[in-house]
Amino acid sequence: MADRIPSDAPTPAPLLVVGSVAFDNVITPFGEKEHILGGAASYCSFAASYYTQVRMVGVIGNDFGEEHLERLRSRGIDLEGVQRDDSGPTFFWKGKYHENFNRRDTLDIQLNVFENFRPDLPESYLDSDYVLLGNIHPALQMHVLDQLPGDPFVLADTIDLWIDIEREALLALIKKVSLFVINDTEAEELTGESNVILAGKKLREMGPQSVIVKKGEHGAILFHEEGMFSLPAYPVTELRDPTGAGDSFAGALIGRLASRGKSDYSSIKEAMIYATCTASLTVEEFGCDRLESAGVSAIAERAEDLLKMISPR
Amino acid sequence: MADRIPSDAPTPAPLLVVGSVAFDNVITPFGEKEHILGGAASYCSFAASYYTQVRMVGVIGNDFGEEHLERLRSRGIDLEGVQRDDSGPTFFWKGKYHENFNRRDTLDIQLNVFENFRPDLPESYLDSDYVLLGNIHPALQMHVLDQLPGDPFVLADTIDLWIDIEREALLALIKKVSLFVINDTEAEELTGESNVILAGKKLREMGPQSVIVKKGEHGAILFHEEGMFSLPAYPVTELRDPTGAGDSFAGALIGRLASRGKSDYSSIKEAMIYATCTASLTVEEFGCDRLESAGVSAIAERAEDLLKMISPR
Repeated sequence: MADRIPSDAPTPAPLLVVGSVAFDNVITPFGEKEHILGGAASYCSFAASYYTQVRMVGVIGNDFGEEHLERLRSRGIDLEGVQRDDSGPTFFWKGKYHENFNRRDTLDIQLNVFENFRPDLPESYLDSDYVLLGNIHPALQMHVLDQLPGDPFVLADTIDLWIDIEREALLALIKKVSLFVINDTEAEELTGESNVILAGKKLREMGPQSVIVKKGEHGAILFHEEGMFSLPAYPVTELRDPTGAGDSFAGALIGRLASRGKSDYSSIKEAMIYATCTASLTVEEFGCDRLESAGVSAIAERAEDLLKMISPR
Repeated sequence: MADRIPSDAPTPAPLLVVGSVAFDNVITPFGEKEHILGGAASYCSFAASYYTQVRMVGVIGNDFGEEHLERLRSRGIDLEGVQRDDSGPTFFWKGKYHENFNRRDTLDIQLNVFENFRPDLPESYLDSDYVLLGNIHPALQMHVLDQLPGDPFVLADTIDLWIDIEREALLALIKKVSLFVINDTEAEELTGESNVILAGKKLREMGPQSVIVKKGEHGAILFHEEGMFSLPAYPVTELRDPTGAGDSFAGALIGRLASRGKSDYSSIKEAMIYATCTASLTVEEFGCDRLESAGVSAIAERAEDLLKMISPR
């Protein structure tokens, strides 16, 4: 069994993760890597696998080799929900980050088998009490929720593309989620507020129980009925590839909650600490490599360090 | 006597503040104000006056009316060190902030009497154990230190101008300061590091006991022998004029330390909380107005709120 951060619950709850699986070509000031495993579902699942049993849902194409499945399996990830579509290759993205990583350009995008992806859940996933809806089309995110008979804790993530072209579907979705996670510029775009605090508050009025606005290297802010929690990011000094940082944050966050069977204010705050530390590992190497190999001790050490760094005493 | 935040020390130590006194014309997306009281020494002194007795040093010109002196006096600020130079008007600055306040242009600058300013200290200031060197020429900052017979706790601030044209003098100065405060872009410029964490660590190696890198709305990071402390900013939703935010931060920070007679790691961390809350008031109105009228209860309430917002429990 894959190693996991210890939890105070007798039995960690399994986590359903839905999202894209991709091959990425990534160019950063530190170099270029081709055809590396990526996509929201991959990053989310690897990150969450340090906390609880992951049930992964996604689609892979005819170019997706056994070695990649084995990487996921070796982290204990349940792949029953991963569909293979032999009609074409896996979703492909090529992007370039500029100096200081404050901007990225998409150079190429090929949906391939992802174009016809429909996230139908295996029977064995239907009892999931924790659900991570990675940043896919909001109608597909809603389709996942429609299949779940219970009342799970749902974290949803999104990207600016859906704010631009599927705003209504996105607004319908976020009404139904427990925790909506979004980055600062997207939060401002979706709400029309140019202040991140006002944007976060407004998003919460749109339906979700809680909202987390991510600010990259500047941390994240939780907006909750019981208050606001502002957490600095774990200080990264060896940034190599920011791809998947947000997905790793989301995966670790809800993975931690699932592992403890909790979702209250205090538990979300605690999970955010693990989330930023997990994401800090992801960005130190290209793709999922560092995240995959980090091990629980690296995460636990960073969590302890970060707790000290935010302590006012 | 001006109201002050209560301190746990029997007698707050007085604080020496040296810097520019100015009249500013400020243009922001919220409007335009002319000939308002500004300058580092003004903001620093008003901010520090909520914590301890301030001894102010600066120069004012023939256009500096009694009403402005009275504003400072009514906050209990000792003006013995403020020199009047009737040969010309007070230092003048005109600046414009753009949408989102992420950039400002200096439209006009007239040194006036500030050009011949030499911060000679009155005899009564020489026993100051806490010293704030606002962002004036590093040679003038050094001149202040040279007059002080004791071994005071010294906070120094700077601006990019001195990094550009007086780098050597600045490097000589920061060797002698206890706490060097600088903003993120300036820290990167001074050290050549593009990562704020690496920049902060490198600055500390240049001599000061501690370094605080200010990140504006994203908070501030303290680099100290005993560790790093990362503090989010107090969340401001009514930003009107960012002028003086950094000076208010510095003034409140060392004002709080002086009021407690402390300068250890834990005390600097505690003072940073008061500093960001004090600065958050400054930026809600043009000039010193909101800072001047805030009152201790507004600061104390924000400090309590911020402590809750950063608590992971």
